[in-house]
Amino acid sequence: MTNAVLSSAFVSLVGAGPGDPGLLTLRATERLREADVVLFDALANPELLHLCPQAEQVDVGKRGFLPSMSQEDINALIVQKALEGGGRRVVRLKGGDPFVFGRGGEEALACAAAGIPCEIVPGISSAVAAAAYAGIPVTHRGMARSFAVLTGTDQHGQAAYAGLSGVDTLVFLMAVKNLDRIAADLIAAGRDPLTPAATIQWASTPQQRVVKGTLADIASVVRQAGVCAPAVTVVGEVVRLHEALNWFVPQA
Amino acid sequence: MTNAVLSSAFVSLVGAGPGDPGLLTLRATERLREADVVLFDALANPELLHLCPQAEQVDVGKRGFLPSMSQEDINALIVQKALEGGGRRVVRLKGGDPFVFGRGGEEALACAAAGIPCEIVPGISSAVAAAAYAGIPVTHRGMARSFAVLTGTDQHGQAAYAGLSGVDTLVFLMAVKNLDRIAADLIAAGRDPLTPAATIQWASTPQQRVVKGTLADIASVVRQAGVCAPAVTVVGEVVRLHEALNWFVPQA
Repeated sequence: MTNAVLSSAFVSLVGAGPGDPGLLTLRATERLREADVVLFDALANPELLHLCPQAEQVDVGKRGFLPSMSQEDINALIVQKALEGGGRRVVRLKGGDPFVFGRGGEEALACAAAGIPCEIVPGISSAVAAAAYAGIPVTHRGMARSFAVLTGTDQHGQAAYAGLSGVDTLVFLMAVKNLDRIAADLIAAGRDPLTPAATIQWASTPQQRVVKGTLADIASVVRQAGVCAPAVTVVGEVVRLHEALNWFVPQA
Repeated sequence: MTNAVLSSAFVSLVGAGPGDPGLLTLRATERLREADVVLFDALANPELLHLCPQAEQVDVGKRGFLPSMSQEDINALIVQKALEGGGRRVVRLKGGDPFVFGRGGEEALACAAAGIPCEIVPGISSAVAAAAYAGIPVTHRGMARSFAVLTGTDQHGQAAYAGLSGVDTLVFLMAVKNLDRIAADLIAAGRDPLTPAATIQWASTPQQRVVKGTLADIASVVRQAGVCAPAVTVVGEVVRLHEALNWFVPQA
């Protein structure tokens, strides 16, 4: 490998935001327009690929927590594409933010191990934006002065949830499948069953849906409404603000 | 007030991101370019005002936790500007994200109370991006599967911090001033004094500085380095990744 290869190989780990193409950053747009290769998956809005017709576009096909290509294979592919043809500009386009449950750290480590320069282009995380598009601020004076973000794919369990008592607003990503268990564990860990809860599906897109309930019934509300992934669940007093602040009207 | 006024009055609560103008969203850029009035404060990058030379620009002068205009006055001013001259497009430009300790909820409620349509344009929050610009992912497989965001201006205290034991990565905004007390309370609440910690000042800008230590000494490291606001402090095992992933080279 020559220095010339290394000097032109460059990887950008780019956050695509929650879905609305208007929430892409200027830097992300620029990187997509200049890219030689773009590796994308189902969590990034496919419309964004119109920004990079010049690039080789590779679908690495991760769909939520059912990857069709292993993370290790994706890491290796990023490195391989960056080193091809004398060094290329690779964009790894990821839904939300690369460092919020995005496995971006692993991809950055793979680049570092291969000696390939890498940058992070943060994206709007649905951890905050999904709630915002339902008119729910994750923090609000007199209501919530802290929030935590967790995934629903991990089974954190009652014991771990007891260790969330100091956090006002809880945000669960990818939690629809395990919502019954999560809600039950949170209640068992001491959180009030009447705490308001909302689940937002396809946040910020024309397909956005919001369902509301309490910690005690949110799982059945979600099931009855037929809400499925991708969705974000918010638990906390701030959910009460949805009624007054629900500003977003999805237009199909 | 006529319907015509109401139909043209419109308020956008816009997140400006952590500082790097490249982290502005496309939607934010569009709203600034179309604005009749822009209300900004010290937490948003002043360079962004070049995008809206056509707009009346009002400095509402909040500086961190020392507001020179009260939040109530800002709320009233947003409403007043939106209703002026038969209804105007007002952008309230805020550092970071409007709903992450941004008082955006209060501003949105003021608009709702006055019957003025309002939208939220999420921004990149320094809660995640400051760490990212120091090469620190707030989540990382095998290291951190949850994170919480708190402010250092609130005195959460030892009891509340005991209720954070289930959270892997802690992010404190506006914490420099109270960092001694926060670190001591976290240790008293059971967090390991040797937990790695980093403070990032002026994240994503040419002035970015990162200092590192442990929970036990981060406050003195920060003081000795002369780091002051605006800064973000990250506490957790993920801080160890800084060494391998520190990609951002600030250029003055």
